[in-house]
Formats: sequence, C-alpha cells, structure tokens
Amino acid sequence: MKQDVSKRKLRVGIVGGGQGSFIGAVHRIAVELDGQAEVVAGAMSTDPRRARDSAAAWFLNRSYNTFQEMVEAESQRPDGIDFVMITTPNHLHYPVAKVFLEHGIHVVSDKPMSLSLEEAQKEVALVEKSNLIFALTHNYTGYPAIRQARDIVRRGEIGNVRKVLVEYLQDWLMEPLERTGSKQASWRTDPTKSGISGCVGDIGTHAENLLEFVTGLRISALCADLTTFVDGRVLEDDATMLLRLQNGGKGILTCSQITAGEENNLTLRVYGSKASLEWHQMEPNTLLFKQQGQPCQLLRVGQFYLSSEVKALTRLPAGHPEGYLEAFANLYRLIIADIRRVERGQEPEGGYPNVHDGLRGMQFIAAAVESSHKGAVWVDVLHA
Amino acid sequence: MKQDVSKRKLRVGIVGGGQGSFIGAVHRIAVELDGQAEVVAGAMSTDPRRARDSAAAWFLNRSYNTFQEMVEAESQRPDGIDFVMITTPNHLHYPVAKVFLEHGIHVVSDKPMSLSLEEAQKEVALVEKSNLIFALTHNYTGYPAIRQARDIVRRGEIGNVRKVLVEYLQDWLMEPLERTGSKQASWRTDPTKSGISGCVGDIGTHAENLLEFVTGLRISALCADLTTFVDGRVLEDDATMLLRLQNGGKGILTCSQITAGEENNLTLRVYGSKASLEWHQMEPNTLLFKQQGQPCQLLRVGQFYLSSEVKALTRLPAGHPEGYLEAFANLYRLIIADIRRVERGQEPEGGYPNVHDGLRGMQFIAAAVESSHKGAVWVDVLHA
Amino acid sequence: MKQDVSKRKLRVGIVGGGQGSFIGAVHRIAVELDGQAEVVAGAMSTDPRRARDSAAAWFLNRSYNTFQEMVEAESQRPDGIDFVMITTPNHLHYPVAKVFLEHGIHVVSDKPMSLSLEEAQKEVALVEKSNLIFALTHNYTGYPAIRQARDIVRRGEIGNVRKVLVEYLQDWLMEPLERTGSKQASWRTDPTKSGISGCVGDIGTHAENLLEFVTGLRISALCADLTTFVDGRVLEDDATMLLRLQNGGKGILTCSQITAGEENNLTLRVYGSKASLEWHQMEPNTLLFKQQGQPCQLLRVGQFYLSSEVKALTRLPAGHPEGYLEAFANLYRLIIADIRRVERGQEPEGGYPNVHDGLRGMQFIAAAVESSHKGAVWVDVLHA
Amino acid sequence: MKQDVSKRKLRVGIVGGGQGSFIGAVHRIAVELDGQAEVVAGAMSTDPRRARDSAAAWFLNRSYNTFQEMVEAESQRPDGIDFVMITTPNHLHYPVAKVFLEHGIHVVSDKPMSLSLEEAQKEVALVEKSNLIFALTHNYTGYPAIRQARDIVRRGEIGNVRKVLVEYLQDWLMEPLERTGSKQASWRTDPTKSGISGCVGDIGTHAENLLEFVTGLRISALCADLTTFVDGRVLEDDATMLLRLQNGGKGILTCSQITAGEENNLTLRVYGSKASLEWHQMEPNTLLFKQQGQPCQLLRVGQFYLSSEVKALTRLPAGHPEGYLEAFANLYRLIIADIRRVERGQEPEGGYPNVHDGLRGMQFIAAAVESSHKGAVWVDVLHA
Repeated sequence: MKQDVSKRKLRVGIVGGGQGSFIGAVHRIAVELDGQAEVVAGAMSTDPRRARDSAAAWFLNRSYNTFQEMVEAESQRPDGIDFVMITTPNHLHYPVAKVFLEHGIHVVSDKPMSLSLEEAQKEVALVEKSNLIFALTHNYTGYPAIRQARDIVRRGEIGNVRKVLVEYLQDWLMEPLERTGSKQASWRTDPTKSGISGCVGDIGTHAENLLEFVTGLRISALCADLTTFVDGRVLEDDATMLLRLQNGGKGILTCSQITAGEENNLTLRVYGSKASLEWHQMEPNTLLFKQQGQPCQLLRVGQFYLSSEVKALTRLPAGHPEGYLEAFANLYRLIIADIRRVERGQEPEGGYPNVHDGLRGMQFIAAAVESSHKGAVWVDVLHA
Repeated sequence: MKQDVSKRKLRVGIVGGGQGSFIGAVHRIAVELDGQAEVVAGAMSTDPRRARDSAAAWFLNRSYNTFQEMVEAESQRPDGIDFVMITTPNHLHYPVAKVFLEHGIHVVSDKPMSLSLEEAQKEVALVEKSNLIFALTHNYTGYPAIRQARDIVRRGEIGNVRKVLVEYLQDWLMEPLERTGSKQASWRTDPTKSGISGCVGDIGTHAENLLEFVTGLRISALCADLTTFVDGRVLEDDATMLLRLQNGGKGILTCSQITAGEENNLTLRVYGSKASLEWHQMEPNTLLFKQQGQPCQLLRVGQFYLSSEVKALTRLPAGHPEGYLEAFANLYRLIIADIRRVERGQEPEGGYPNVHDGLRGMQFIAAAVESSHKGAVWVDVLHA
Repeated sequence: MKQDVSKRKLRVGIVGGGQGSFIGAVHRIAVELDGQAEVVAGAMSTDPRRARDSAAAWFLNRSYNTFQEMVEAESQRPDGIDFVMITTPNHLHYPVAKVFLEHGIHVVSDKPMSLSLEEAQKEVALVEKSNLIFALTHNYTGYPAIRQARDIVRRGEIGNVRKVLVEYLQDWLMEPLERTGSKQASWRTDPTKSGISGCVGDIGTHAENLLEFVTGLRISALCADLTTFVDGRVLEDDATMLLRLQNGGKGILTCSQITAGEENNLTLRVYGSKASLEWHQMEPNTLLFKQQGQPCQLLRVGQFYLSSEVKALTRLPAGHPEGYLEAFANLYRLIIADIRRVERGQEPEGGYPNVHDGLRGMQFIAAAVESSHKGAVWVDVLHA
Repeated sequence: MKQDVSKRKLRVGIVGGGQGSFIGAVHRIAVELDGQAEVVAGAMSTDPRRARDSAAAWFLNRSYNTFQEMVEAESQRPDGIDFVMITTPNHLHYPVAKVFLEHGIHVVSDKPMSLSLEEAQKEVALVEKSNLIFALTHNYTGYPAIRQARDIVRRGEIGNVRKVLVEYLQDWLMEPLERTGSKQASWRTDPTKSGISGCVGDIGTHAENLLEFVTGLRISALCADLTTFVDGRVLEDDATMLLRLQNGGKGILTCSQITAGEENNLTLRVYGSKASLEWHQMEPNTLLFKQQGQPCQLLRVGQFYLSSEVKALTRLPAGHPEGYLEAFANLYRLIIADIRRVERGQEPEGGYPNVHDGLRGMQFIAAAVESSHKGAVWVDVLHA
C-alpha cells in the first residue's frame, strides 16, 4: 500500500528518453521542477547498455531493459511509480500507454498520441473505462501567455473569432539529416515509426492543438497541400493549409521543417470582431493585445493584471524570463495535482491536454494527409 | 515644341487626388521629392468647386473640370504636361489612361490597372502599340530592401525558392465604415467603382506583385477562400489563399481589412533551399537574411554592402529612416528617368511595374474570385 | 514688392549644400515636401564650378559664387527669396546668418548655431531686434512621436520627471575617416570649422535639445567625460555625462561616433513619478508609454488617439512609415507657416527650435568641454 | 563517512528562503534542475512555524529552527549536507557563511557577499585558508549568451574595449512599498539588513559584476550620483555613474528601482575598436554582434556556432527559450562539478563568481556611496 500522496513527492517512471534523446531530459526537468515528483525508474532504451547508462546518469534507483519488465515490476512494488512518462518515438506511444493503463498506472504521453487514428480511438476507450489520468504533452499550452490568451477569448474581449493564423516553422530538416545517422531525424522521417505524416504529425499537431486550445473552437474542415522538398524523403517536410472553423471563422495553418533560419517559430494570431491577440513562442512572455484605434498593449507574464489561473503558473516576477521548460513544467504541475486528487478519491480538474485532444490530433493528421493526397481539396475534420 | 527635357523638371498632371483623397497627396510628394518633376495641372475632382480648391491648395497653374478637358488642353500646349498621374477610384483607371495614351501622353496609374480583365487586355494592346511609358504604382516594390531581396534571389544566394509566405493585413474596414460617409471606404466597397473584388484587388494585388517581383516566379495556381465578415458588405474583406509557384514552390497569401490592430502589415518571407529572406513593410529598412546554422543577418538600408542598384535608391545614410513616401518616390525616380530617355529617343530601361504587371494583377484577382466562388478550389492563374 | 505670400509657394535660397554634401539635399527635400516652398537660388559652394553644377542639378534659376553676392542680389529683386537655409560647416553659420538677417531675410540655420558661445550671444541680440524668423534645424523635434511625448509630459501623465536617459550613438568615425579625404569627416574633426567640440557639438546638442524639448526642463549642471579614441584626432569622438535637471531630476547623456554597429541611434527615455516614455529614432513611429503594473502601450504615429497637434504633422495613415525627411519637413512646415504670418503682419506662433535654443546648445557645449577639461567635474550650465 | 559523491546526487541545505521569499524557490529549482543535487535540509525562517511549514512544503527530511542548529547537526551526520545555500537578507550572509565554512561545509551565498567591506575582507581570508568551495550567485553570469560575449571579447573579436554601457532598471520600488508590509521591500530599504546602499547593492552590483565578467576589465574609478526619489526612504533607489576602466575605456552604469514600466531590464553593451556586443536580459537568448559596415548578426543560444563552453550550458535546441532559472542552474552546474572535484581531491576549475568577486562588489558599493556622499566626485575603486 502506497504512502499517502499528500506527504511525499510522486514517484515517476520513464519509458524512452535515453542518451541521445532530446525530449527525455525535458520531461525529467519539467516533472521535477516544482519539487512535487521525482523520477525513480526507467526503461530508457531498447539497447540494454544504453538503458543502464542512461538511468545511472540520472541516479535512478531502478533501471529496466523493457517497458514490459518495468510495468510488471513497478505495479507490484509498494513504492512503485505513481505514473509513467512516455517519451519514445511515435509508434510506441500507444503500446506503452496501453499496458501501463491496463496495470492501473497513470500515463503522461508525448504527442502525437498514436501511430494511427484507429489506435487513438482504442486509446480513448481504454482511458474512459479506467479511473486513471491520461495526459498528452502538448507542452505549448503550458505557457502562461497562452493561458492568458485563452482567458481573454473566453471573456469575450476579442469578440467573435474571425480569423486565425498559426504557423510552426523550423529548419532542422532542410538537408537530408536522416542520412547522417541522426537519431532524431531518422525516426521522424520513417513512416513505420512516425506514422502517415512527417512535419504535420511532429509539429503541425502542436499548431492545431494550440489554435483549438486558445480559441475554444474546432477546425471543421481543411484544405492541405503537403510537400516533400528534400529528395529521397518519404514523409512531407512542409505543409500549407486553409482552415474553416466551426463558427464560420477562417484560418491558415502552416508548418515546415525546411524553412531556413527558423529555429522553433510557433506563432499564433487570433483576430476577433473586437480585438486581436498575437503570441510568439520564441518570446513567450509577451502577449500582444490589439484593438482598432487603441494603442497595442503588451501583456507580460509575471504581472499582476493577468488572470489568477495564469499567475499561478509563473514562478518569477515579470522580467525574469521563463521559457520552454517552465511551460512544460506547468503541464506537469496540473497533471500531478490531478493525480494527487484521483489518488485521494477526488475528481480530477483537468486543464492539460487529454486523450480527447490526442484523438483530435490524429483526426487532424488524417484529414490533412487525405486532403493533400486528393490534390489539396477540402476535407472535413471528424468530430470526436 | 517642348523644351529639352534634360534642362528642366518634367511637368506633371494629376487626375483625381482632390481634397479628401489620401493617395493624391502621396503622388504629389513622391513625384516631386527628387526635384525632377513638378505638378502643374490637374483635374482633381468631378466636383468643379472641389477641383478648383484642390488645385489652388497646391498652387497649380492649371485646373480642369474634367480629365477630357485636361487632355485636350494639355496635349495642345507647348508647355503641356509630360505625363499624367491617375489617382482616381479603380473604375476610372482604364478610361483615363486610354485617352491620355491616345493623346500621346505618358501615364502613371494607380493599381489595380482596370475594373476588369478585359479592360486590362485592351490596355496592354494600347500601350504596346504606343511609344509611351506606362507605369503602375505598385509602390512597395520601390523599397530599397525589397530591391535588395530581389537581388539576393537573383544571385542565387537563397537557392531554389521552396516556400513563400506573404500577408497584407489592415483593420480599417473591420467596422462598416462605408456607412459613415467615408469616401475611402465607400468606393472601395462598391463593385461599380472597385470591381469584382474588395480587399484582394485593393491590397492582395500588392502582395501578389511583391511576391512575383522578389522571387521572379509566377504564381501558377491558387486556391482562395474569400470572406465578407462585415454584415451588409458586398465585396470580400478577407482572403486566405494557397499558392503553387511555377517552379514547384508552395505559398500562402492572405490579405484582410478586418484584422484588429493591424495597420498596414505587409510582410514577405521567402524560403529557399539555401537561405531565406524576411521583410516587414512597417520596419522597411531592415531585411533579414537567414541561413541554417548561421547567425541571422540584419541587412540595413543605407549601408555600403548593399548592391549598387539599391544604394542608388536611398537618399540618407543608414539609421536615418526612409519610409513609404521615399519608396513611392523611388518608382517615380525610375519612371521619370525612363520618360526622359524616351523623349530623347533612347530606349526605356524599366525597373518599375508596367502594363504587364497590371494585367498580371487582374488575372490574379479573376482567379481568386473564381476559385472562391467555386468553393475554394484550385484555379490556374492565366499567363499573359 | 513681393506678391502676396498666401497665393504662392515661398521662394527659398540655400547657402552650402553643394555636391558631396549630405544635409543640403535633406533641406531641399524637406522644405519642398509639402508643396509650400521652392528652392530658387543658391550659393552652394565656395568652389564656383561646383556651385554652378550643384545649382544646375537642382534646376535652380539663380546660382551665386558667394553668399555675399547672393544676399545683395536677392534682397534687391522683387522676386527675391523669402528665406535662406544655411547648410554650411559650423564656422559659417553665424557669419551667413548675420548678413541675411541684416538684409531683412528670414533665416533657417543648421545646428550648432555658431562656432562660439560669444557668436551665439550676438546672434540672439541680432534676432531679437529684428522682426525676422530665425529657426534652427534640431530636426529630431520634428518627429510626431516626439511631439506626442512632449504633450504627454505637459499633461502630467508621467508625473514629475525623475530620470532621463538620452543617447546618440554612431560609428562612422570609429576609424580615422578624416584622413581618407572624406569631406564630411574632415570639417567635423577640424576645430577651426567645427568649434571647440567634436561629437558633443555635432550630435550631443541634438540629444540635449531633445531632452529639454520633451521634458520642458533645463539641464542645470553636468559632469562630462570627453574622450578621443581615434589616434591623431583633435576633437573628442565620445562623451559620457551625468546630468542634474532644474527640478531635481537626474540624467545621463552619452554621445559617440566610435560605437561599432550603431548607425544613428538616438534614444530618449523619460521616467516620471507616474509613468515613463521611450522613443528610438530608428523606429520613429512608435512611442512606448509605460506605467507600473499596467501593460506597456505602443502609441503609433498616424493613429487617431494622438493629440491634434501631432496628427497635423503626419501625412499618412498609421502603418505607412514616415521617417527622417518627413520629420525634417515638419519643422519647415511650422517655419513656413510662421514666415507667412510675419509677412502678413501677424504674430509668429513658433513650435520649432529658435535662437534661444541655439544659445542653449552653445552653453551646453561650453559646459561639457569645461567640465571635461577640469577632470570631469560638475559644471553649471548657464541659463540664458 | 560520506558515500562517494560520484554515485549520488549532492545533498544540499538551505538557510532562509522560507514562504514569502522569492529567491529561496529560485535556488531550489536551480540547484536541482540538472538532477545533480537535492535539497534535503533547511533552516528556512527565523520563525519556527514558518520554518517547519516551508520545509514540509518542499518535502525536506530535516528542518531546523536556526542555522546554528543546522550546521551543528549536519556537520555530524554521515548523510549530512554537502553544501549550503544562503538565501537570507544581506546582513546574515556573512555570519551564516562563516559558521558553515568553519564547520567544513561548502557555501553558495546570495549577493552582495556581506553587510560591509570589512566583513568581505574577513570572508576572503576565511575562504582562502579553507579547502572549500565558496560561490556567489551573480546569476546573470550564468546566461549562455553572456558566456559567449565573454568568449568573443577574450578572442579579441571586438578589439580593445572603448566604451561600456550597462543598466539595470526596475520599477517595483517606485512607490513606498516598504510601508505596505512587503517583506521583500522592507529589508531591502532597511540599512541594518541591506547595508549602506539600496539599489546599488541590490542590483547595481549585478551590473558591475556583469561588466567585469564580460570585459575582463576592472572599473578603476567611478563618479556616482545616488538619489532617493521616494519620500521617507533612507537608502537610494536610483543611481547614475560614470566609469573609467583600467585600460582607458569609459563607461556608464545606471541602476534604478523607480523607473516606471521597467521590469528587470539588465542591458549590457560593449563597444570595442573593431566591433560591439549587445545583450538584454529580458530576451536572453540573443546576443547582437555588430561590426561597422557589416550586417548586424544575431547570435542565438542553442546554435552550433557558439563556443563549446557555451553549448555545454544549454539544455535545449535553439528556439526553445531558456531563461532566468536555467541561467541560475548553470552556475549551480559549475559549482556542483567543482564540489565533486574537491571532494574527490581534485583541483576546482571555477567559472562562477567567487569570494574575490564578492569582495569586488563590496568595494564597488563602498566607492559608489563615498563618491555620492562627497558630491558625485571621482573615487578610485580599490583593487583586491
């Protein structure tokens, strides 16, 4: 029997994230940042030596060769993990989540949620019949300025959403990096590990999720033109899309991994009948609020005038920049609070991307790929 | 017989641009800025009193009630105008240009070139059989940084163009301004004066022209979603478009006059196989040049490292901002030089938007409207 | 007898500004920009051939070999010039102004007003006993955003001024350019033409003038450390200063012509007991208004919320950048209006830097040089 | 006997930092961020209840009522802390450091190092005769871009340093916040807890440290004008200073806590004979590198072209913003590595602010206060 979760840090396991991984360390830092959880166990690589070395580098008490071993052992231990973080390539997201859920362990998974839309639908069913927390790390929703933007939209301060422009631009795949042995590039450009889509699945889903998170609106239809610019690559490395929103609003979404000089340029602009909002991930602590005929206002994270939910997600006074890791940690803060609630028999409160958002992402990928295959025609995005 | 044009300022007439006009004064300042021409005659309004008052306010020697009177009189005078500037609403662009061309007077016209594609085709024929200069004031091509961008593309420094993002966003029509008596808003939202398109014709054509000017590529096809957001308005006030370029590159063009807080946000980003370029009209003296894995460079207007053609279009050292009027004046500088050449029997050298660019703009408008009417499907943009 | 000034453009003469000059062309463009004046005569160089060629390039009717010839001839002609623009090196500012004033011709002079404090005092006396307009082109006060800043201070919206930070940084003299034959560099580094100071006189006076213009406060004392960094140069090329303002406020002023990468970086920040203002000359159409605990506001030139005086000094809607030349032209707009008033027997209204501001600048130079020579000690800045 | 430090996280104690503290949580996050240390013990408040609650909130195993109890107990335990973090108000920095050093425990202290220059001198002696690590958290030196700037200066890429402009501006004390019960404001404005200086000690020392860190030069003399703008406050809340550097370079340092709208604006500009550098703490991942006549370069944290030392201090690819906490954690990364070295009998390698930097800061404060008291005259800054 586990010790009361109120009196201790939660115990966390990790699948994937071994040496050479970028996102593994991100999850570790983010989950531990607020001092509410500690990573204690891992199945960090399919290569046993790398798994062991990776765990040792983190001073983990328990290292496993496979996630199957891990779930068996941890679900038996009185001091077993409270939840698992899945930080593998896409094709393992669903199989790993499935087995941990089946063993009664809460799951935090990287996105996209699964390799296929079918898996995603099964995953929804699995989570719904469990009493477990399932969270998806669409980490950009953890930025305080994004939460402030959502609040402003909800309060009606921009009026009806008329137009949304969202872009996510990178350049790291503008050369055929996958042929140089880059682990990061290899699996992302390999359909068996990445799924039916390249950059749409990898980063386009973040853009889609962010748009729907902030506006509270669903994309009802899209017209997508997916392109592979780098010779020999199978999956697309660029996409341009027109969007129609459920309320009649219009939008554009573009994502690319071949746009020279773009580091991690995720930008969201939402134009309403009364005002507009603009946010840039690379300067994440500023949210522009613009009204016609009024001075543009720079809303700054850390300031008192932000809404209380947002202020609760900052750790520093304004002017002390918080960034990517802190935003990621904000999701974990909300997730951990919910796991504590559920473990104490309380209702979870949410506030982070969940299995329905995960399904939504897979529907988006499916629609974008279908649209493009048909010649960039309009395709409905299925509603969950 | 006119005095040798080498020894004097050119004499300029204006049609339209009377009191209440925004663009009339812009043309006057721009054409006179370099001391190479002087406005001396005008048919500045269809209202005779306003025409007279407008001309007096500019100390013009000769004021006419109609452009027909003007062309008759000026073409007879030994000191008649060397060229005319057409600054009327769209529906008069072609009729005025036609009669001045027929009387042997060079023409500088505001864009779009005509009310319809048919008129545009006639205008091409008219100009081609004349020996006259015809220029169209797609003024944004007058910015030195835009010229530098074109040079960089031409020199192959960004490699093959893969992706182009161009946007032109304003907010001045986000309310039904045309119902408040605003002259500017009224004709622009009236199909009989503006043509088949609202914001695509008014500002989208600038975006299209800029894209083709800088990349040297044609838009081969587009998929356009035009929307009228303001109740009761006939013409669209917003457009989102996917583009395909003749070289296989992809693009997005969006223009809007209902995007709150956007003043005159014309932004161009061109991504090539080697590097990319970014330019913002509202900070026009900086051009970003970005290569993967290299520090982004800020190319600044007025610096010695710019190409010589570009340096010839600046009047001030770097750090002394030049703006919209100076860019507009750059077109006139090139146009006036060509008129002097033609008048001396030399070949014109061009370098400014001409009748073919004007036709191109009308084709673009026609394609965008057709695409949208058919449900936002792909439509070829006809080649001239 | 001159024709009524209401019914014609004013006639302008220029002294200096011949080929190779930067500021001559600036004055021509600025004075003519609004169509209210025309340059018709010049004594543009001490080299007769250059004088003639310069005048011809501008299509001037009347070219003189010397300013003395010019003043004699123009003051006799019925169609003589209404005012003169002095655009020579510093040592000629006073002698030229003196003779035109003595011949009853209004004067617009470049800054600093004279070579010495003594000359400046004589110039004040000369102007005061005349009935003539004397204006000094501290052109940065012509920027609309600067006028808006002054209005905000005057209305008490920032409270009591506590701290002012002003800097004017360039890099064009970071190498010994004067040894390469550069005309611009040669006279500016030569005490016989430039006066007792280098960069303080050349650009520091602009900073001083801007500070006093916007705050409405006098600098009561300063402590200045002047440095010559480039070997062999006589006059300082860098200065750092502490300031004390008449109301107890504190300040810093720094100017330099050896700061690598700085083009023409004139920046003003004014901190009051309630709010603060920030302005950058290189992005001149934005004024930042900041209150503690409130979102920073971007006040934009061309917007309706600006004060009416400011709106009267813009020519374009917001988002269409106006720059250095337009700001310069704003001073001429105000000066020309005053010359028309005086010529019609009305009182001048001012609004542009005058002979007292010129004297003030010379006092500032004298104090800065004295302070530095004594080891960077505190020196009072004399009040006029 | 302690377990080999190579095989475990280091154990950390904290003095101060209890609930209501800002900097306590910063230290906890920073020290634990890289998974190399864990806070296990604390004497977090002089109020026993608050101490206990604060420790419980962090799940600390061991909570003490006083730092004396803590040092006695921890120095005896086989699993005692490896080092202590001192996060109290200034007056306790020295007494706490002294007793931990005397008990053989490594010390990381907040800045300024002590209440007085005398204490600082004693502290140097104490550290020098020990074999212990003493580090001072001038955390801004932990920013990768600052490290890159130092490298560029060291490699001679900007030439000789001619001019340095450093400013640290805040607004949080522009009203008498100390009279509202704010703990943060109260001790900082109280000479018995803060020392002889207000904002110079609190933030000016960061600016001084950053300047000397990046340039590798000492400030040889200063002329400081300290002002208390808020009525009733004892210590200064604003300072303006001229600086002279040991190599003949000139500088300006200003710090303020009454500058409306400034959040935490620490800006450094270094101008050399060949190029210059510019950095803004509020956008910390960009370093501007400027050469005359060349495009300004934006050096971006996370890019491969940075020096290897700098790359070792980033955790994320470029475009994923790291901020204040990550920079703080970089100091701890270097400190922890050195503690491990010393514990294994190796030589420490440094790379973080140490006791000599701490003494330097106290000398700077003493000189600034002396200069201002004498009327803002030049005062030498003593060399250690």
